[in-house]
Amino acid sequence: MRTQVAIIGAGPAGLLLGHLLKAEGIECIVLERRTGDYVLSRIRAGVLEQVTVGLMERLGLDGRIKAEGLPHDGFNLADGERLIRIDIAALTGQQVMVYGQTELTRDLMDATDERGLEVIYEAADVALHDIDGNSPYVTFSSAGARQRIDARFIVGCDGFHGPSRKAIPAGAGREFERVYPFGWLGILADVPPCNHELIYANHERGFALASMRSHTRSRYYVDVPLTEKVEDWSDERIWDELAIRLGPDAAAHIMRGPSIEKSIAPLRSYVFAPMRHGSLMLCGDSAHIVPPTGAKGLNLAASDVHYAAEALTGFFKRNDRDAISGYSDKALARVWKAERFSWSLTRLMHRFPEDGDFERAMQVAELDYIATSRAAQTSIAENYVGLPV
Amino acid sequence: MRTQVAIIGAGPAGLLLGHLLKAEGIECIVLERRTGDYVLSRIRAGVLEQVTVGLMERLGLDGRIKAEGLPHDGFNLADGERLIRIDIAALTGQQVMVYGQTELTRDLMDATDERGLEVIYEAADVALHDIDGNSPYVTFSSAGARQRIDARFIVGCDGFHGPSRKAIPAGAGREFERVYPFGWLGILADVPPCNHELIYANHERGFALASMRSHTRSRYYVDVPLTEKVEDWSDERIWDELAIRLGPDAAAHIMRGPSIEKSIAPLRSYVFAPMRHGSLMLCGDSAHIVPPTGAKGLNLAASDVHYAAEALTGFFKRNDRDAISGYSDKALARVWKAERFSWSLTRLMHRFPEDGDFERAMQVAELDYIATSRAAQTSIAENYVGLPV
Repeated sequence: MRTQVAIIGAGPAGLLLGHLLKAEGIECIVLERRTGDYVLSRIRAGVLEQVTVGLMERLGLDGRIKAEGLPHDGFNLADGERLIRIDIAALTGQQVMVYGQTELTRDLMDATDERGLEVIYEAADVALHDIDGNSPYVTFSSAGARQRIDARFIVGCDGFHGPSRKAIPAGAGREFERVYPFGWLGILADVPPCNHELIYANHERGFALASMRSHTRSRYYVDVPLTEKVEDWSDERIWDELAIRLGPDAAAHIMRGPSIEKSIAPLRSYVFAPMRHGSLMLCGDSAHIVPPTGAKGLNLAASDVHYAAEALTGFFKRNDRDAISGYSDKALARVWKAERFSWSLTRLMHRFPEDGDFERAMQVAELDYIATSRAAQTSIAENYVGLPV
Repeated sequence: MRTQVAIIGAGPAGLLLGHLLKAEGIECIVLERRTGDYVLSRIRAGVLEQVTVGLMERLGLDGRIKAEGLPHDGFNLADGERLIRIDIAALTGQQVMVYGQTELTRDLMDATDERGLEVIYEAADVALHDIDGNSPYVTFSSAGARQRIDARFIVGCDGFHGPSRKAIPAGAGREFERVYPFGWLGILADVPPCNHELIYANHERGFALASMRSHTRSRYYVDVPLTEKVEDWSDERIWDELAIRLGPDAAAHIMRGPSIEKSIAPLRSYVFAPMRHGSLMLCGDSAHIVPPTGAKGLNLAASDVHYAAEALTGFFKRNDRDAISGYSDKALARVWKAERFSWSLTRLMHRFPEDGDFERAMQVAELDYIATSRAAQTSIAENYVGLPV
């Protein structure tokens, strides 16, 4: 097979890029290791920036987002006693959209046939070749046979553990990493949310997040040491812990229900730079990870895809080689700012085992300052809705 | 001797409080361990918030500040390549005043005789007694004789190492502390400053600050490991290091000259809470220390003094006991915010030995974000000019 762009990974980043390229008349094939159903079963983020919604609008795939998504004008920081509301609409003139990543992926997936976007599922043992030159190719196994796709560019949308980043020769990039000493224990349940907006809480027992996917589906988290096992957390134990950490006002409105999904996710900050090597470009989690605090992961993948689509369009439509060489710097400028925001919100809202009384007092002082400063609230709000692309 | 308020320490905090109380007709005596000349020889901060200048205005002691002080509309953060100017005047409508602490102390000292503010210098072995009750007293040695001052209140303005805080019984307060792994090596010289506004620089070799006391007197700092000895730093070595860390633009304008003063000061964040115990109130460094980054130390002492003067005036003029009991919370609300700002600016502008590549990248990302965000600049500016009292 031959195409212009081989895209590795059919998660939201890969599908979004595929649709954007198709819309520009650029040929591409998307390879996915798993089945479509498996991809849709992965529970991920649920807060979309305007930039992300805007890309779906451009594709004309925003119908369900507009119909079923929940536009939010604000969110809350809690310190065990009070809620500090960040009025993002008043402070920035923008909203965010609560809409599950799974739903976004489904919208993209449902449009592939109609738009002729080729996705090859269950492509096993994907390997990248000759990315240093101008004729890279990808090999994989499908239906028991080894196959090959020749392309002008390969784009890695295959997440942190995928083969794309690993194909870059040692020494050709630099890794930045911070691993956090806790994970998020999440529970998904078909119950109405306890609050119409998100609540991030820093309680003396630890972090909690009250979030939702819809008016009838809630997503909650508490942080736990990495040594905890999900089997030790019954639904009731999680609900009890949430009721304490979110504070009495939220607790009074928590509706309990059986978990649909329950898991512990480690928290990590990670950046691989540069985000391009030869004919390989990286998008989303393949190049960087943020802790989920602030919901930047999916949105950052979307802005990477935006920059990658621009660069590839420039190359194929205008023969603009600078577009390709400028991709990494453009994408990384926004990545680093989102990494900073996710890291600083994580630091503010979690108890770190290495922190002493003074560092804890600094968290309290920062929350007090945020509660009284329009400038501080604006800074948080503009990062939360997403910095301009 | 008997008075209403015994003030320990004749630095700027003690003298300012003494004058404010005298202006309200409240009797007080200020005790100072050193001579007046010694007090004036201590080189300290040099940037006054409007709140601090306002207190001098209220006393009618602002003549020389207005004549000789340098009003500043902004300051700069440098990252080795560029200057990020924080336009505090445009962002907050306020200025800061560059005016040496030594000069402010002199202004307060010069007015003591005329206003009948009694200051006893060379008061040795000051000790506080009966602070739990309503009849505290202070003993000290002066001219070889042991003396005693009975008062209704004692106010400790005697710095971090003074006897006041130490007089509070163990367990009656809580300490919060962070010691930083470096100190500031400072040089004072009678040369024009290299820039008309302050420059805080985070260079790969470490921190540097270009500051000034006047158009003809400069104050510069570089951070050094605490193991360094000032004897190993010749003037030339300091000037050479400054020229590197401040970057080529500033370096081109550095005028070198012999040091008038040269010393290494450790950096510490410290808060003792509450700031009152019985009949003893603490102001300034006796209750809290900030690292000098951001120039909050003197200004925080001034706002403590403002709250203490208000509380004592309420007590003596309106028999308002709540004024006294509310002092600590009022003062601490502002103290914690200034501690937070000083700590965060210190973290942003220094290289910490424990930081890895990711933490360093976060400093770069934060400086990049600040450079492009009006909200972030406003947040820094409003803290720099001083939050409202």
